[in-house]
Amino acid sequence: MKIQLALDRFRIDEAIALASSVEDYVDWIEVGTSLIKEFGMESVRAFRKAFPTKTILADMKTFDNAAYEMKLCFEAGANVATVMGAAPFATLEMCKRVADEYGGHIMVDLLNVPPEQYHQLARLTGVKWCYHVSKDEQEGQGKSATTLNIADCPMGIQTAVAGGITVESIPQFKRRGIDIVIVGSAITKADNPIEAARQFQSAMDNEKTMS
Amino acid sequence: MKIQLALDRFRIDEAIALASSVEDYVDWIEVGTSLIKEFGMESVRAFRKAFPTKTILADMKTFDNAAYEMKLCFEAGANVATVMGAAPFATLEMCKRVADEYGGHIMVDLLNVPPEQYHQLARLTGVKWCYHVSKDEQEGQGKSATTLNIADCPMGIQTAVAGGITVESIPQFKRRGIDIVIVGSAITKADNPIEAARQFQSAMDNEKTMS
Repeated sequence: MKIQLALDRFRIDEAIALASSVEDYVDWIEVGTSLIKEFGMESVRAFRKAFPTKTILADMKTFDNAAYEMKLCFEAGANVATVMGAAPFATLEMCKRVADEYGGHIMVDLLNVPPEQYHQLARLTGVKWCYHVSKDEQEGQGKSATTLNIADCPMGIQTAVAGGITVESIPQFKRRGIDIVIVGSAITKADNPIEAARQFQSAMDNEKTMS
Repeated sequence: MKIQLALDRFRIDEAIALASSVEDYVDWIEVGTSLIKEFGMESVRAFRKAFPTKTILADMKTFDNAAYEMKLCFEAGANVATVMGAAPFATLEMCKRVADEYGGHIMVDLLNVPPEQYHQLARLTGVKWCYHVSKDEQEGQGKSATTLNIADCPMGIQTAVAGGITVESIPQFKRRGIDIVIVGSAITKADNPIEAARQFQSAMDNEKTMS
């Protein structure tokens, strides 16, 4: 089980400083959609420069123009990029094709995709799936990923989960076989982000020991 | 009927030079998603500065984090912003709320939203709808907006159409009551973009005379 630190609603320098402070406790670093739309690919390049050996995910949320957008972020230094599961299937396929060319990976964001459509997405193999409760659903409706109905995932698909995740929810995601836990504000908005990140790592290690 | 010039896959300076050359023939200028993801809000600010009195649409394609993303683009100078119709309804509502605060407007991008779900979107009033065939569907599957099944739209909703639009398709969109025709490569990739834009304007004027 890996932890992905999601960085959103920061300046690039603030986000890098925060990520640096907790680098030892997180596996992947996510350059959030808000950084990408506010600062463009400069955000991804800055993270690649600051963390030369870390896995960097660019939360592109691609919905169209897949080849162009994927090239942008992989050339800027991303290892993983997101595409929306709600996008046309041609877009998902093209994202995967370009990722393969760059030796990168694709995470399909299942936000607002009804579970009855998962079987269509399962036609795209070799990608990761992200079960996701959005910020707007969290803030407007009090939802979180802990209440997500995580449907069975095809064999061989790595799974991630995102949306209002707390340390307390780690054991349940571990039991449900989730591979990547995406954590944002529970670390970035904590009074002590380093201590918060350490607690996440500790919760995951405990689970590793137990499993 | 208005024409919206969509600018994608350019550097900012190239896009502004192109838009300047055809400014007299187009009504709205769209800062494309690719410019936003490549260069961030600097792209929107540069267009606002270059075209102080023109209506600027920021093709944000927002899917989450609506308040933050809408503030970004309206503060950068956009008049209109897009949100994906496939996003959670809470996101669409928040986009509208922030647009209202800024005196801006929202265009809901219907890309990959099945027509049977339009009635849910119709609960959000005072927005524009964009019937949209994506670049990836055009390039991968040969589709275009001319073959779109444009379902009846609720009263009072302004409609736009995007995706592989040519001069020849203007009369049919006029007949179908479309308010905004979004044109990208038919102008930007033309051998003579000025002549192409002039032909679009002429086609729309002819239709205006006929109607």
